[in-house]
Amino acid sequence: MEPTGLWLIGARGSVATTAIAGLLALRARVVEPTGCVSALPRFSDLGLPGWEELHVGGHDIADLALDKRAELLTDAGVIPHRVFEAVRPALSEVDSELRPGYHPATNPGSQADAARRLADDIGEFAARNGLARVVVVNVSSTEPVFPALPEHGTLAALEAAMAVPGRTVLPPSSVAAYAALRAGCPFVDFTPSTGIRLAALEELAAVKGLPYAGSDGKTGETLVRSTLAPMFAARALHVRSWSGTNLLGGGDGLTLADAEHAGSKLASKGRGLATLLGGDVTSPLHIDNVPDLGEQKIAWDHVSFEGFLGARMSLQFTWSGYDSALAAPLVLDLARFAALAHRRGESGPIGALGFFFKDPMGTEEHRLAEQFAALTAWAEAR
Amino acid sequence: MEPTGLWLIGARGSVATTAIAGLLALRARVVEPTGCVSALPRFSDLGLPGWEELHVGGHDIADLALDKRAELLTDAGVIPHRVFEAVRPALSEVDSELRPGYHPATNPGSQADAARRLADDIGEFAARNGLARVVVVNVSSTEPVFPALPEHGTLAALEAAMAVPGRTVLPPSSVAAYAALRAGCPFVDFTPSTGIRLAALEELAAVKGLPYAGSDGKTGETLVRSTLAPMFAARALHVRSWSGTNLLGGGDGLTLADAEHAGSKLASKGRGLATLLGGDVTSPLHIDNVPDLGEQKIAWDHVSFEGFLGARMSLQFTWSGYDSALAAPLVLDLARFAALAHRRGESGPIGALGFFFKDPMGTEEHRLAEQFAALTAWAEAR
Amino acid sequence: MEPTGLWLIGARGSVATTAIAGLLALRARVVEPTGCVSALPRFSDLGLPGWEELHVGGHDIADLALDKRAELLTDAGVIPHRVFEAVRPALSEVDSELRPGYHPATNPGSQADAARRLADDIGEFAARNGLARVVVVNVSSTEPVFPALPEHGTLAALEAAMAVPGRTVLPPSSVAAYAALRAGCPFVDFTPSTGIRLAALEELAAVKGLPYAGSDGKTGETLVRSTLAPMFAARALHVRSWSGTNLLGGGDGLTLADAEHAGSKLASKGRGLATLLGGDVTSPLHIDNVPDLGEQKIAWDHVSFEGFLGARMSLQFTWSGYDSALAAPLVLDLARFAALAHRRGESGPIGALGFFFKDPMGTEEHRLAEQFAALTAWAEAR
Amino acid sequence: MEPTGLWLIGARGSVATTAIAGLLALRARVVEPTGCVSALPRFSDLGLPGWEELHVGGHDIADLALDKRAELLTDAGVIPHRVFEAVRPALSEVDSELRPGYHPATNPGSQADAARRLADDIGEFAARNGLARVVVVNVSSTEPVFPALPEHGTLAALEAAMAVPGRTVLPPSSVAAYAALRAGCPFVDFTPSTGIRLAALEELAAVKGLPYAGSDGKTGETLVRSTLAPMFAARALHVRSWSGTNLLGGGDGLTLADAEHAGSKLASKGRGLATLLGGDVTSPLHIDNVPDLGEQKIAWDHVSFEGFLGARMSLQFTWSGYDSALAAPLVLDLARFAALAHRRGESGPIGALGFFFKDPMGTEEHRLAEQFAALTAWAEAR
Repeated sequence: MEPTGLWLIGARGSVATTAIAGLLALRARVVEPTGCVSALPRFSDLGLPGWEELHVGGHDIADLALDKRAELLTDAGVIPHRVFEAVRPALSEVDSELRPGYHPATNPGSQADAARRLADDIGEFAARNGLARVVVVNVSSTEPVFPALPEHGTLAALEAAMAVPGRTVLPPSSVAAYAALRAGCPFVDFTPSTGIRLAALEELAAVKGLPYAGSDGKTGETLVRSTLAPMFAARALHVRSWSGTNLLGGGDGLTLADAEHAGSKLASKGRGLATLLGGDVTSPLHIDNVPDLGEQKIAWDHVSFEGFLGARMSLQFTWSGYDSALAAPLVLDLARFAALAHRRGESGPIGALGFFFKDPMGTEEHRLAEQFAALTAWAEAR
Repeated sequence: MEPTGLWLIGARGSVATTAIAGLLALRARVVEPTGCVSALPRFSDLGLPGWEELHVGGHDIADLALDKRAELLTDAGVIPHRVFEAVRPALSEVDSELRPGYHPATNPGSQADAARRLADDIGEFAARNGLARVVVVNVSSTEPVFPALPEHGTLAALEAAMAVPGRTVLPPSSVAAYAALRAGCPFVDFTPSTGIRLAALEELAAVKGLPYAGSDGKTGETLVRSTLAPMFAARALHVRSWSGTNLLGGGDGLTLADAEHAGSKLASKGRGLATLLGGDVTSPLHIDNVPDLGEQKIAWDHVSFEGFLGARMSLQFTWSGYDSALAAPLVLDLARFAALAHRRGESGPIGALGFFFKDPMGTEEHRLAEQFAALTAWAEAR
Repeated sequence: MEPTGLWLIGARGSVATTAIAGLLALRARVVEPTGCVSALPRFSDLGLPGWEELHVGGHDIADLALDKRAELLTDAGVIPHRVFEAVRPALSEVDSELRPGYHPATNPGSQADAARRLADDIGEFAARNGLARVVVVNVSSTEPVFPALPEHGTLAALEAAMAVPGRTVLPPSSVAAYAALRAGCPFVDFTPSTGIRLAALEELAAVKGLPYAGSDGKTGETLVRSTLAPMFAARALHVRSWSGTNLLGGGDGLTLADAEHAGSKLASKGRGLATLLGGDVTSPLHIDNVPDLGEQKIAWDHVSFEGFLGARMSLQFTWSGYDSALAAPLVLDLARFAALAHRRGESGPIGALGFFFKDPMGTEEHRLAEQFAALTAWAEAR
Repeated sequence: MEPTGLWLIGARGSVATTAIAGLLALRARVVEPTGCVSALPRFSDLGLPGWEELHVGGHDIADLALDKRAELLTDAGVIPHRVFEAVRPALSEVDSELRPGYHPATNPGSQADAARRLADDIGEFAARNGLARVVVVNVSSTEPVFPALPEHGTLAALEAAMAVPGRTVLPPSSVAAYAALRAGCPFVDFTPSTGIRLAALEELAAVKGLPYAGSDGKTGETLVRSTLAPMFAARALHVRSWSGTNLLGGGDGLTLADAEHAGSKLASKGRGLATLLGGDVTSPLHIDNVPDLGEQKIAWDHVSFEGFLGARMSLQFTWSGYDSALAAPLVLDLARFAALAHRRGESGPIGALGFFFKDPMGTEEHRLAEQFAALTAWAEAR
């Protein structure tokens, strides 16, 4: 494929840094593409952009140098020492493509002005690198729930409100989505933040004829849930309760254990389970901040189910993973698949990418196997 | 559908007794068909035999009365008290349809004679009850591995050997399969015993134009494995080891913990995992006899896998179930689906029933979601 | 020992009913005293009251007959059918010794009046049955946290306030404790409610020369925690976080998942862990109401710890128990040991009974093995 | 204390290398003594040899340089990078104190000659470094079970047999123990190999007036078992089965999964459980070699127990640790405590060190809390 851009919102975070370091390592052929769905043999003939053809830039409100961030992830066990050593120089090059992100506190002007600046950053990145297209992927920290406003209903109303200096009509993730669309870029939301999920922004995507995908990357507990729940359904076993506890360290733990933030994440997790099993299942869910776990994420689920003649049985599982290591390859996958959708001229939500998300847009399918079949069928169409 | 017979080999065992008691309870409308796949709404228009249309008979070498067996299962927590009370009288009626099974030690004549007697039992059962067809399902105890013999290669050679008085050319499960086919019945093997899996018997099924299915009901650990393993494959995650331990009480625990018997069961379990993940996975597996667990079965699996940049992660699960409660509804399902295949005039192994088995015949598919899709497509064809 | 009374506050609840049914079954010699610490051989020479010498009465605000309650517990799997059948008639006899409990909403007079009535009930029970002493044990539902009041500081201030009609100066558990002491009875608090833990009530116990014990029976997760935590300490392993989730059905789940109620329970659980490990441990803890679990209680704990050279390791456990079956024998134990203390003329908190409690009074020792050693030494003294 | 030697049998193995690297890191004050029991405050006044006073030497049949071995352990996550960098030069110095170990295949002369050479090595080490005493600790690979021979009965018979050229009357661990005693050194066996556990060698220890301790370091599953089992006993709960599975990578996994080798290890594990719970407990136990786990060791235990009125309950735990990180600090502890015993003039098995062992010599106590109390009492005596 042609040279393609991957523009990361939250480019200095753990997920982004792991994705960038991994891409550089793949390019240097010092690692295998383990965990990269798009590198499965069945997707090899689609003309997806190769590792050498993906160019990375991005926005972030933090300013820690990428190689410093990568060093922290190396100490935390996410990036192996030898990989870090191999990609360290190239990380500094990517650093030069990163620009300051948008945050209301530090951008006193209108949101329209801010969005214009963000879109210009992306446009210059594309021009500077001779890119055929740029996919924008949001991997920034989960936002608190943003209140619904009437101005979110139409593009005209939204843009009028955005033009008012000092007015905060959109959360940062939606400003980023707006800027991406204005710059003519497909937008992917890897977080549960509002992002593109406003009528006004979907209208803009339609006007511009752009594809988008989201939301909330499915990397751990929910991945397993969307795999196991269909088993109970197919076997006519009656799930009576499905209880879950998540232990997270790192910045994510801190962000999500906060009640308001967790609101969006828990809702996103809960939506899938209800769809998979029907709405009558007791399903308490917790997210705890356990700093000593660092980048590790541990989830315990207990499923109580009823079988023939009312027999009471249970399944419990413990998932122990590194969130950034699980998310990073999917970010690369989404950049490649969204680029494919854009090249094919698709517009609107790409339901076939629901495979990657806890709360998929453009589809009601939450079952993992069926999602994978849909992804494959979509990718191989044409 | 027309009146249909379900002939159980091992009709006085835990699985059979639970299936019989459950069928009677369904007929009496005192329970819901939880755990019955064939009772899912999507299969309601196929004309499967209703609970009232299924008549049960069977063979067993034991002679404990069905209601006594059911009482033991009630004490063990598999059958609820109120269900037992509701079906107790009807159990005695079914008892009158059970006949002595075949065992080499108690049948000193030729295996041909024995098979003839077994086939006659089935034929008389069909005639007595005016049945359109009888499905024979083997749910007897797992046999030790039976050595391969040249006589198993062709029907002619097999029948010649069977005619020799005192010669044991077949294990009991295969004598039962032979008798079923000779009686013109579809045969289903719910155990990992040899059963119909001999060239000579497959030849006989072809000659008689009969369908068959098997083998080894997928009720617990393997059910979960065939659900989870495709998740790792679809996400390009590299499974490095998959270790398993099974704790069983009851007769099954005693039978299977014995090394020779376990041979067939472990082989059957292992075959699926290798197919699902490729052959290079370390996968130690144990079956332990833990009598105090009674009818309960507990399995612990530990999956070690590698993700992006070599990140080492793990998933472990503990399954706690009642084996008979998991198996019994599938026995009813298989009787109904095999009756459908027979009515449709199908012959040979029914690969679409692989959904129910650890070691499916007639298909190489081990992934549960794909198996369910195949079952649905097959059932809805025509 | 002489005839001894066991007066239960919350006598119609799950724990009390199981204790009563169990005592009757022990008396009828249809069960072994499994789970009864006081029945261990080492305590056989202390002259503890025998099963035949323990007479049961109690208070409860509910009025469901004991045999009905026991039937529900039988259906829930806590009491075996054969035990229920054996003790059913005797349950009705105990029923005749139960009296209406105190609740502010149904007792419009002064709390002094209410307490007098409660004490009279106990006194008449003792007289009617010719009892040498009566031990009062609180097993009623956990109360919401009751605010501290100045009147709790001295007996004089408290009694003055209690005499004011319509004034609620004490929660029900403390009214019960006051009544017990006024009736000359040792008091044991098996719940985390306020009970006797007020300066004024401790003053009353001292004045009357009565022993007491509590609080909050240690039956599940905390039992395991107080066993495991000392292992880490003795091995100089540094526990970094200890996370816990409790899934409860039954009335307890409903009561405790309510935030306010859980306050007292979670505080009680947390206090022990901090003492065992030092105060710097991250220890998120949840209690979820999962109705389908019924009487079952499932706890999952994840312990993250650091070893030599900073090695990061973990221990997780899943406890699956029946809360009433765990608590009931301890109620009988406490009645017997408290009777011993009373006979010996002890006064004040019995620290040696800390073995039985999450939040022990009269001792700072939380380590189970050390608590057991202290219990044994105390019991064998003299 | 005076300068003290720690002579390691198997000095280039994982446990020894971790112990050596850790000692050097403690001396350099770059780590805390986490996991070192002897560094607990309560043992600070005993005059145990300080980290600076411990000098290390040893035997090994392998010849991989210590710093290479340490580098492998660093890659495996057992030794942190910064620790490795800090101790690398000092590791090479220790390397100069290591000597070739004994193995029958490479020592064609008599075992008496071999033992003399080993004892000389230790003596020269002590002289070279001006050591007051040397403690010999066996941390070499677990041996296959060695057959009992009549010559093991008395020292005279043993030494006569050892003098015969080419005769293998002792396994290597016992040759090492013999040499240690002949060199006047206390001997500690951290493995389940035969070591000093022969009447002839115990006779030699008595003759020489030397203390010894063992055997088989209690570092993981058994540590937890010896902590939890007394809980069930103290609570009068009846354990019905205790099932265990161990997953090991590294050389240990390979050695122990081999049936013959596992014999000694499994026996050693089983002995403790039977003592703790009584002999009637079903307790299947497996050790599996799972190479991808590397230095990690994962154990799953399932305990089925019965409570009041026959209630069936369970506890399961999963232990995930680094075996070398768990064992290494105990090796340092044992060197220090054995040095104390020697300084005090003790002779024979030191039962008070049973705290450290799966199969303790000189005591029948297996309960961890009681073992710790015994250790403390012993250490503080005098």
